[in-house]
Amino acid sequence: MTIDEAKEKLAKLQAKICAYSHALSTLYYDGSTVAPRKTVEGRARTTAILSEEIYQLSTGEDTVKLLEFLDENKEQLSKTEKRIVFLMLKDIRELQKIPMEEYTDYQMLAAKTYDLWHTAKEESNFSLIEENYEKMFAANKRFAKYVAPEKKPYDYMLDKFEEGLTMEKCDKFFATLREHIVPLIKKVQSKPQLDNSILHGNFSDADQEKLAYILMKTIGLDLDHVGLGTTEHPFTTSLGSHLDERITTNYKKDDFSCSLFSVVHEGGHALYDTGSDDELAYTVLDCGVSMGIHESQSRFYENILARSEAFCEYLFPILAEIFPEQMKGHNAHELYLAINRSEPSLIRTEADELTYALHVLIRYEIEKKIFADELKVHDIPAEWNRLYKEYLGVDVPDDKHGVLQDMHWSDGNIGYFPSYALGSAYGAQYLRKMKETVDVDGCLRKGDFAPINAWLRERIWKYGKSLTPAEVFENAVHEEFDPTVFTSYLEEKYTKLYNL
Amino acid sequence: MTIDEAKEKLAKLQAKICAYSHALSTLYYDGSTVAPRKTVEGRARTTAILSEEIYQLSTGEDTVKLLEFLDENKEQLSKTEKRIVFLMLKDIRELQKIPMEEYTDYQMLAAKTYDLWHTAKEESNFSLIEENYEKMFAANKRFAKYVAPEKKPYDYMLDKFEEGLTMEKCDKFFATLREHIVPLIKKVQSKPQLDNSILHGNFSDADQEKLAYILMKTIGLDLDHVGLGTTEHPFTTSLGSHLDERITTNYKKDDFSCSLFSVVHEGGHALYDTGSDDELAYTVLDCGVSMGIHESQSRFYENILARSEAFCEYLFPILAEIFPEQMKGHNAHELYLAINRSEPSLIRTEADELTYALHVLIRYEIEKKIFADELKVHDIPAEWNRLYKEYLGVDVPDDKHGVLQDMHWSDGNIGYFPSYALGSAYGAQYLRKMKETVDVDGCLRKGDFAPINAWLRERIWKYGKSLTPAEVFENAVHEEFDPTVFTSYLEEKYTKLYNL
Repeated sequence: MTIDEAKEKLAKLQAKICAYSHALSTLYYDGSTVAPRKTVEGRARTTAILSEEIYQLSTGEDTVKLLEFLDENKEQLSKTEKRIVFLMLKDIRELQKIPMEEYTDYQMLAAKTYDLWHTAKEESNFSLIEENYEKMFAANKRFAKYVAPEKKPYDYMLDKFEEGLTMEKCDKFFATLREHIVPLIKKVQSKPQLDNSILHGNFSDADQEKLAYILMKTIGLDLDHVGLGTTEHPFTTSLGSHLDERITTNYKKDDFSCSLFSVVHEGGHALYDTGSDDELAYTVLDCGVSMGIHESQSRFYENILARSEAFCEYLFPILAEIFPEQMKGHNAHELYLAINRSEPSLIRTEADELTYALHVLIRYEIEKKIFADELKVHDIPAEWNRLYKEYLGVDVPDDKHGVLQDMHWSDGNIGYFPSYALGSAYGAQYLRKMKETVDVDGCLRKGDFAPINAWLRERIWKYGKSLTPAEVFENAVHEEFDPTVFTSYLEEKYTKLYNL
Repeated sequence: MTIDEAKEKLAKLQAKICAYSHALSTLYYDGSTVAPRKTVEGRARTTAILSEEIYQLSTGEDTVKLLEFLDENKEQLSKTEKRIVFLMLKDIRELQKIPMEEYTDYQMLAAKTYDLWHTAKEESNFSLIEENYEKMFAANKRFAKYVAPEKKPYDYMLDKFEEGLTMEKCDKFFATLREHIVPLIKKVQSKPQLDNSILHGNFSDADQEKLAYILMKTIGLDLDHVGLGTTEHPFTTSLGSHLDERITTNYKKDDFSCSLFSVVHEGGHALYDTGSDDELAYTVLDCGVSMGIHESQSRFYENILARSEAFCEYLFPILAEIFPEQMKGHNAHELYLAINRSEPSLIRTEADELTYALHVLIRYEIEKKIFADELKVHDIPAEWNRLYKEYLGVDVPDDKHGVLQDMHWSDGNIGYFPSYALGSAYGAQYLRKMKETVDVDGCLRKGDFAPINAWLRERIWKYGKSLTPAEVFENAVHEEFDPTVFTSYLEEKYTKLYNL
C-alpha cells in the first residue's frame, strides 16, 4: 500500500462512517420529532444493525491496519490527516476493548430506554424505567472498566464528554461555584422578588413558532441549512455534516420564554456546528470538540447574550408585534427583569442563570454515587428529592418534575451534566475577552450578531475537532480557565438586578 | 453449510437489507418533509453510499451462494422462505446485470434530480431539469437493455411496476377506456356543469390538518403506526416495516378537497401496507405486491369509497363542524355533486374520476415514445401540451401546471403511471365482488370501514408480496380482469350525476 492509496482509503472510510452516522442521526431525529408513537421497534432494530456496521467498520482488521500504517508514516500526513488518524485510532482502541455483542445490545437498549423514558415521564412513573436505567448504568460501568481499567469508572465517563475532566477537578470547580453562588442566592432571596408576569399568558404554538424562526435568523442561523422541530426535550443534532443541522424546541402554552431560550440555547449549539470549516465536512473532525465547549456556546447565547439588558431592548418590540395583547403596557426593562428572576425551582432547563449550577451539581453527585456503588438506581428518586430539598429548598412533587425531567440517562449520556456548568463558566471568560474588541452590548441592542459570531467562528467554531478542547479554550481567551470570572459575572449581574 | 445455518443466514441478510432500506426511506422522508432546503448534498452522498451497500449485500458472492444453495434445497423450505429466495434471486439476477458504478451513480443522480425537480417546478422551468431527465431516461434505457435485452425497453419498465404488463396489454386496456370514456366525457360536457362552490373558500392549514387526522382514523389507520407529513407531492412510504408507515398531504388554502382526497388516497396505500401479516415484517415480502395492486387500493379508497354519495352523508357533518362558516347553507348531496364534478383539467392528482385515465394515457404515450426514440426529452413539454390539448381540450399555461407537476420522472419511476389507471379499473371489480357480502353503502353511511377493511385485508393486504399480483387479484375477485366493469361503473355513476 502506498501512502496515497492509504490516504484515499482513509477518505473513503470516513465518508462511509459519516454516511452511517447520518442514517443513525436521521432515524433518531425522526423518532424524536414526527414518528408515530409505536414505531420504536423498527428503529431500534435498524439502529442496532447500523451500529454494528459502524462498529465493524471502525474496529475491523482492515481499518486498524490502515490507520496503523498511516500512523507509522505520519510525517507524510497533513495536520488534518494526522488529527483524523489520531482520533480514529484512539476511538478504535477504546471500542476494541468492548465486546461487540455488548456494544450492539447497548445500542438497542439505549433506543428502547429513550422511547420508554417518554412514557415514564408522561406517566410520572420512575418504576417503569428503573430496570432499563439499571442496565444502562451497569453497561456504562462495565464499558468504563473495559476501556480504562486504570481509572475510576466515573472519571472515564467525565472524560468522555470533556477530555481531561476528573472528579477531582469537578469537585474543586463545583466547590468554587458553591462558595460564591450559595451566599449570592441567599442575598437575592432576602430581597423583594422580581415581577415576571410579562412572560405569562396564552401563547399559541403558531405564534411561538413564528418567534422561534425570527430568533434563529436573528442570532445568525442559516435556515437553508438549519431546521426546527418540536420534541419533549429540546436538542440539536447534525445530520451527516455541519451543512444539515436540526434544532428542536418545546412550546409551553402559558410561558413563551421557555421555547425562546430553548431556541437560543440549541441555536448556540447549531451555530457552533455549522460554523466549522467546510473542508472538515464528512470527516470525523466535523463536530464540536467537547461537550463542555459545546455547552459553552449554547449557554453563551442563551444567558450571556439573550438574557442581557441590551438584547431585551432589541427583542421587546419583536415580542410586542407577535404578542400584541400580552405585551401591552410592558416594556423592555420589565422583560429583562422577568427573564432574570432567580428562584430555586424544580426544572433544570427552566432554571435561571444563578441557580442553574446547583441543578447540575445534584445530577453530578447522583452519578458519582452510583458509580461509586454508594447509591442504587432504585433509590435515585429519593436521593434526587432529598438533594433538591437540601440545595434548592424545593419539594419535588412527582418524578415527572424530578428525576424523569432529563432524557440524558435514557440516552446513555451519563457524565454529561457537568459540561453544562463548565460551559456556563467558560462563557464568562469569552465575554470578558470579546469585549476588548467587540461592542457586545451595542451589537445586541441592534440585533446584529455578525461581529459576535465572527469572533467565535474565528477562535472556536471553524476548528471543529481539529484542536483539543484545551487548545480551543486557550485559543479563544489566551488565559487559564478561572471559574471566578463566572462567579464575578454573576455577582455583578445579580447585585444590579436585585439591588443587593 | 447445513440447511438450518442457511436459513439463519437468510434471515440475517433480510434483516440487514431491511435496515438499510429503512435508513434510505427515512432519509427520503426527512428530505421530502422537514429538511432545510439546501441539505440535499449530504443526503445524496449518504444515499449513494447506502445504496452501494445494499447493492453489495444483494449481489455479493456470499449472498448468491447462499440463495443458490437454498434454491437447490427448496423442498426443505417453507412456502414463505421459497418465495423469499425466488424473489431475491430474481432481483439479484437483474441487479447483477447492471454495472455497480452505473447503479450507484444512478442513485446519486436520482437524489439530485428529485431535489432539482422542486426548484424547476417552483420556477416553472423545464430547462432547469432537462439535462437530468435526459440522464434519467438514458440510464433506465441502458438498465432495460442490461437486464432484459430480449424485451422492448419500455416493456421492461412496465413490468417493473406491474409484473406481466406490456405495451400490447396497455394499448388494449387504454383503448377500451378511451372507447367508453371519451363519449361519456362528451355527454357530460353537453350537460349543465355541477356546482362545486362548497369546496372553495379559505381553509387554514391547521383546520385541514385536523380533518386529515379525522379521515385517517375514520378509514381505519392506526395512528400509533401511521404518521402524517406535508410535501409538495403527496406520497406514502414504509419505514423499515409495515409497522411504521408515513403518508403525506398538501394543503391548498382555497380548496379543502385536495388534501382530503390526498389523505384518503395515500391512506389507502397505507392500509394496504400496514395490513400485511406481522410475520412478514423485516422480510422482502413485507410490501405491496405491485404498483397496480397498490394503486388499486389507494384509488379504491379515494374514489369508489370516498367519492360515493353514502360517504358524503357521513362526511358532511364532520366538515360542518371543522368549517362551520364555509359549510353554512350546504348539504351532503351538494358535497357529493361538487366532489364528482367532471371537467377536463391540467393537474392529474386533482382530476376527477372520469377524466383521470386520460391524464395517465398522456404520460404513457410520452414514455412510450421516448423509449422508442420517437421523442426527445427536450421536446417533452411541447408534446405534453399538444396531448393535453388533443385529449382534454385544455391549454397548458406553463411547465409547473404541465410537465413538471409530477415527481415520478425525477425519482426514476418511469413506467409507473399506467398502474394508476389499472388500479382504478381493478377497484371496480373489487366493489362488485365486495357487495355480494358487505353492505358497502351502509358501512360508508356510518363511517364504519371495519367490514370493508376486513374484506380487503383477508383477500389482499395480508399476503404482502407472498403471492404474485395475478394471484392476489384472482384471490380477491375469482374472475378475470375486465376493464369494462370499470367503464360500466363510470357510466352508471356519471349518468346519474349528470342526468345523461
